[in-house]
Amino acid sequence: MARVSQEHLDARRRQILDGAARLFARNGFHATSMQDVLKEVDLSAGAVYRYFSGKDDLIAAIVKEVLGEIRAAFADVTRQSPPPPPDLLVGLVLRRTLRVWASLRAEGDSLFPRLIMQVWAETVRNDELAAILTDVYVELRENWVLAVEAYQEAGMMRSDVPAEHVARTMIATVQGFIAQQALFGGAPVEVLQDGLRGLMSMPDERQGA
Amino acid sequence: MARVSQEHLDARRRQILDGAARLFARNGFHATSMQDVLKEVDLSAGAVYRYFSGKDDLIAAIVKEVLGEIRAAFADVTRQSPPPPPDLLVGLVLRRTLRVWASLRAEGDSLFPRLIMQVWAETVRNDELAAILTDVYVELRENWVLAVEAYQEAGMMRSDVPAEHVARTMIATVQGFIAQQALFGGAPVEVLQDGLRGLMSMPDERQGA
Repeated sequence: MARVSQEHLDARRRQILDGAARLFARNGFHATSMQDVLKEVDLSAGAVYRYFSGKDDLIAAIVKEVLGEIRAAFADVTRQSPPPPPDLLVGLVLRRTLRVWASLRAEGDSLFPRLIMQVWAETVRNDELAAILTDVYVELRENWVLAVEAYQEAGMMRSDVPAEHVARTMIATVQGFIAQQALFGGAPVEVLQDGLRGLMSMPDERQGA
Repeated sequence: MARVSQEHLDARRRQILDGAARLFARNGFHATSMQDVLKEVDLSAGAVYRYFSGKDDLIAAIVKEVLGEIRAAFADVTRQSPPPPPDLLVGLVLRRTLRVWASLRAEGDSLFPRLIMQVWAETVRNDELAAILTDVYVELRENWVLAVEAYQEAGMMRSDVPAEHVARTMIATVQGFIAQQALFGGAPVEVLQDGLRGLMSMPDERQGA
């Protein structure tokens, strides 16, 4: 048996993950067979099964990678002190998220939002995946609660609303924008940043005492 | 053949739609078979196929109903003049959306967000469905652009951001909150309303001239 370098093994694994991710993003996990994956990556069954024991193993590896990218994107931006205002914070996370996985593109748009959508749909019917996703969500939320508390302590935001609720709302804008990208095609991140700037400019006349 | 009243026909159709929607919300469209639907609604194949020609027909009917509910929820609240501020507007839409389809519940939570999630995932891989969903989205966005323009004309919101971007952002908060409900369980709508109030209270020091 020929000696195979670690680089070669890594590149081959990458090739399989990229091909499978493209198919999953376009067609979902259920409508994609291992046969489809073999065809997409143009490798034999033997070559692919050396890296992944089957579709579930491939799905698990892709979900792990998707979540890793999202965690990194969220963590990076909240490490700044003081945190940038919400429109910039959300913009930084989204730009970083949409830039990852450069090979995962079709007609200029990132397929990443579509892949996330399929992960979400799979999560709803898979308790194990739901538990993993919940852990990540709780971690991200805690990160962003710190940012919101910093806004409130600096007097930049009213302090009579729970920081966790604001953090959840900011995360919802990211999730909703990703849903829009998956469903209706790519759009510049400026759309969401403008929108947040608009909302942030509204004085609340009911704020009172 | 016995004469069957229109009420009976309607009730039977409703029973099938509700049962199928519960299964689709829990397991997705692909992992649900017509056999599963027959078992869930406890009817014979003959009885069910009298109303729906197959799974695709059932999916189409459910998508139509989901979109109809969402359109109604969005349209209702923007008909008010002047429109309520964003936190109330979003709260009204979400409350109405989560209240519909009362039979679609599990352990106290509405299964509607999970059903929406499955519709989204299906849309990504189905061009026909994507076209229908895009039409609805464009209509809702136009509705909400009017609300945002009203805020801007009333001097309640800075007018140097495109109304469409703010409308898309408000819709993103609704979509993101629905994703959170589907993925992480029910939460009171107040969470999102508080969050929006927090964001709305942030003066933008970069606003300048």
